[in-house]
Amino acid sequence: MKHLTALQDLFQAEVDQLNLGTAPAKLYDPMHYIMELGGKRLRPILSLMGAGIYGDPAKAMPQAMAIELFHNFSLIHDDIMDAAPLRRGKTTVHKKWDDNVGILSGDGMLVKAYQFLAQCEPAILPEVLGTFSQTALEVCEGQQMDMDFETMDEVSAATYIQMIQFKTSVLLGCAMKVGALVGGGSKKDADALYQFALLLGTSFQIKDDYLDVYGDPEKFGKQVGGDILSNKKTLLWIEAQRRAGLQNIDFTAYAALAANEEKVHSFQELYKVLGVDTYAKEQIDHYYRLSLQALDAVAVPEEKLAPLKEFAAWLYSRES
Amino acid sequence: MKHLTALQDLFQAEVDQLNLGTAPAKLYDPMHYIMELGGKRLRPILSLMGAGIYGDPAKAMPQAMAIELFHNFSLIHDDIMDAAPLRRGKTTVHKKWDDNVGILSGDGMLVKAYQFLAQCEPAILPEVLGTFSQTALEVCEGQQMDMDFETMDEVSAATYIQMIQFKTSVLLGCAMKVGALVGGGSKKDADALYQFALLLGTSFQIKDDYLDVYGDPEKFGKQVGGDILSNKKTLLWIEAQRRAGLQNIDFTAYAALAANEEKVHSFQELYKVLGVDTYAKEQIDHYYRLSLQALDAVAVPEEKLAPLKEFAAWLYSRES
Repeated sequence: MKHLTALQDLFQAEVDQLNLGTAPAKLYDPMHYIMELGGKRLRPILSLMGAGIYGDPAKAMPQAMAIELFHNFSLIHDDIMDAAPLRRGKTTVHKKWDDNVGILSGDGMLVKAYQFLAQCEPAILPEVLGTFSQTALEVCEGQQMDMDFETMDEVSAATYIQMIQFKTSVLLGCAMKVGALVGGGSKKDADALYQFALLLGTSFQIKDDYLDVYGDPEKFGKQVGGDILSNKKTLLWIEAQRRAGLQNIDFTAYAALAANEEKVHSFQELYKVLGVDTYAKEQIDHYYRLSLQALDAVAVPEEKLAPLKEFAAWLYSRES
Repeated sequence: MKHLTALQDLFQAEVDQLNLGTAPAKLYDPMHYIMELGGKRLRPILSLMGAGIYGDPAKAMPQAMAIELFHNFSLIHDDIMDAAPLRRGKTTVHKKWDDNVGILSGDGMLVKAYQFLAQCEPAILPEVLGTFSQTALEVCEGQQMDMDFETMDEVSAATYIQMIQFKTSVLLGCAMKVGALVGGGSKKDADALYQFALLLGTSFQIKDDYLDVYGDPEKFGKQVGGDILSNKKTLLWIEAQRRAGLQNIDFTAYAALAANEEKVHSFQELYKVLGVDTYAKEQIDHYYRLSLQALDAVAVPEEKLAPLKEFAAWLYSRES
């Protein structure tokens, strides 16, 4: 993934010299703090790749930054809502400062995202802006759905997929589409690329659920079984609950198990008995194939899409 | 103020049929709840007036709605930060639901504001969007400055004026400017109208500080002396602290008084002794005059500006 590393470096150089403002310090310091925590920078890279199909990837740098600013704004506010102490192994903004600082600097970051986004040709601004705002609202809807799920007894797989798409995948789609538009792609191309990234992101999120259960502890960054221990409604959990009901297996007894390593093993076994591990792998493959199919509608020479396919294969095969 | 009432009714009719979304309910219900709490609707009326100078006020209805949505987003988040139980006499969003609902529905409202804002001719979109984002950031800066002031021993009058301008007046300026641009006004006109509303808003905010001390309890909506009881750094407080220092009056002793009616009387007297009541009135007049002067740069027949002057006079003479 030489191409990917080059784009990551290009974007990181931009983050390194990012100056969003200085005073009041409590408004701007947290923005720089979270932007400098790192991460894979998948979203801005999709923007740069989108522009790269048609010319210089760097043409979409302001929009790549807008997408990353938006993503980090949502992390600050989500971490407050989840009362999370850590983000990327470092103290979260609301813990390092306080909730008020987190709320307000998050708000400011969302506005900053719009400022960067608007740095494009006026002719495409309405489409760029419309896509971004629609996506931003869907991300809010996805976050609320996710919180609603916590207190619901049952969630359907279809509703779950819609939630992860809204909460996560639509921003990948938006990143790609905006990059393509700024780079000079047609609306038709940009919409197809949106679908590519949306579906790839869906596959990626289901893989996340899968790795939480069956990931290699040596390679997986987080604790394997974390979702099981917190009774999180992942796709595997939801489908297992449905299948257990059909087979008169007492799923609530499993859910009520004390949160320790044995619970993780019990669920790993249960999921296999119910065929939910295979189901999850099929879903991962399903959305991965759909994402590649979406590229067929992009009207450019095939070699222009090679970096996207390489990127998709890299995400698909990830183990962390 | 027949003109004003007509515009208020026009805007209220739009709020009455506002549909921002339905599901998830916890995301959209709070948006409708706070929008229906009412208020004077000063900001959207300024937008409608701005467009009205050049033609049909209703041409700026989406932007008027955008400004009111932004204002209400900021109220939801400010109320969380201030832990305020009431807003316009009703339960605040974060008390009626919870902090998480307040944070997320506020975020969604900010995005909705951008969606309404963008409903204008593409040719003026960059200027409209740029003005709005700059204003939104300044509002965040003003809110942070206000919170920072709480723990500062002294604040200069100039810094205080900058804070109230950022926290409140710039949004009035933005509302007016965006309305004028959408209505067909030149950028030069729109900038002059921005100054008019910014300066009028500054006068209005200082009047707010003044009425808190010397308002007629029969007419003033809130408790007279509320700012004094909470040792709030208003313009009168700040200037009194400075003048007390020059005259070797122990201001900290006044600040340390028990929070009761006697403290209010003591400050009313102190402010008179130090001439701070007169100073505040001079500042109110100063910014009011400057606001009217700003209208001289608007290149339209004088009668087109009559509603603005009437509006300014009405705000200037308010007692609540």
